[in-house]
Amino acid sequence: MQKPSKIILGIDPGTVIMGYGLILCTGPRISLIEMGVEKLPVKKDAYERLRLIHKKISELISQHQPHDFAIEAPFFGKNVQSMLKLGRAQGVAIATAMNAGIPVTEYSPRKIKQSITGNGNSEKEQVWKMLQNLLDLTEEIQAYDASDALAVAVCHHFQNKLADRIGAKKNPTKQPSKKKVSGWEAFIRDNPEKLRAR
Amino acid sequence: MQKPSKIILGIDPGTVIMGYGLILCTGPRISLIEMGVEKLPVKKDAYERLRLIHKKISELISQHQPHDFAIEAPFFGKNVQSMLKLGRAQGVAIATAMNAGIPVTEYSPRKIKQSITGNGNSEKEQVWKMLQNLLDLTEEIQAYDASDALAVAVCHHFQNKLADRIGAKKNPTKQPSKKKVSGWEAFIRDNPEKLRAR
Repeated sequence: MQKPSKIILGIDPGTVIMGYGLILCTGPRISLIEMGVEKLPVKKDAYERLRLIHKKISELISQHQPHDFAIEAPFFGKNVQSMLKLGRAQGVAIATAMNAGIPVTEYSPRKIKQSITGNGNSEKEQVWKMLQNLLDLTEEIQAYDASDALAVAVCHHFQNKLADRIGAKKNPTKQPSKKKVSGWEAFIRDNPEKLRAR
Repeated sequence: MQKPSKIILGIDPGTVIMGYGLILCTGPRISLIEMGVEKLPVKKDAYERLRLIHKKISELISQHQPHDFAIEAPFFGKNVQSMLKLGRAQGVAIATAMNAGIPVTEYSPRKIKQSITGNGNSEKEQVWKMLQNLLDLTEEIQAYDASDALAVAVCHHFQNKLADRIGAKKNPTKQPSKKKVSGWEAFIRDNPEKLRAR
């Protein structure tokens, strides 16, 4: 039986730039639909920058109707002020997807790198090279914020495949169950020593 | 000329509880529509709690069709992890209002207290007593998260009135211009020394 196609929107939300990447997955095959960045001018006030995140993600959802939404969710910043801002950017991105009824999954940067290159400490260049191979891309990278967003979409695809395989093994007649992975929760569970403030 | 009525939704978003308060403003008169809290069970995962914030605010907006959305936006927490979570809660609340096309205004806790009691360092009890006087309320307070949310709505009403008066003074024939106050930006501007990490 031919598997139906699935569109995944990956988002790397930041406070000065937001990366996005859209992929089409048909069974194990993945192809790039679009990748890019939305710049969030520091001259504009904090509220205006959040509005730009909301607007861009709403447009991408309306244009491409993704089935899944995957977000890169880092946990640590330099100080509480920057983390509050980052949390707001993440919250706006998450709520925009929620509002469209799209399932949201978070992944830590380490988990994403691990999933793409097999090494959670990979450099961005190495992740991009791997993405070029996987998606058969020849273009030069414009901004690593865009490739980071593409990476989280591809990571989500791999996790879906993994969940499908596990589901198939456990119960061959059962449809793969809806995955409920939370990168944040999982990270905290797996790395309790990182919970202290820096 | 009779001023049209305006409904303001005030939100105090937290990571374990979210307060909300709705007021009806007709000229200088204000009355309570509804106040309460949405509990965000710590047993549920972080994503599920954000979904509860989004759901409750969406319901309040759909039920009461507020004209304005005012949010209490504290700036500091104990550590980066708690600030990221708080930022996410704020971001989800803000984006839910944005999605409904409702103007969002933020106020710092200090600004809200200042606006209600004349003292930015007031206790919650004092703020609540003042709200009881202003809104002619006789009921006991159930949770200060709810009265905090009510306070931000009333603060926004006072700021609107102030903007109207200033607008009327500057240009008596001109309609009061749409106010663009950002509590966060204003706080940072007025308190640059508070910007360092704690």
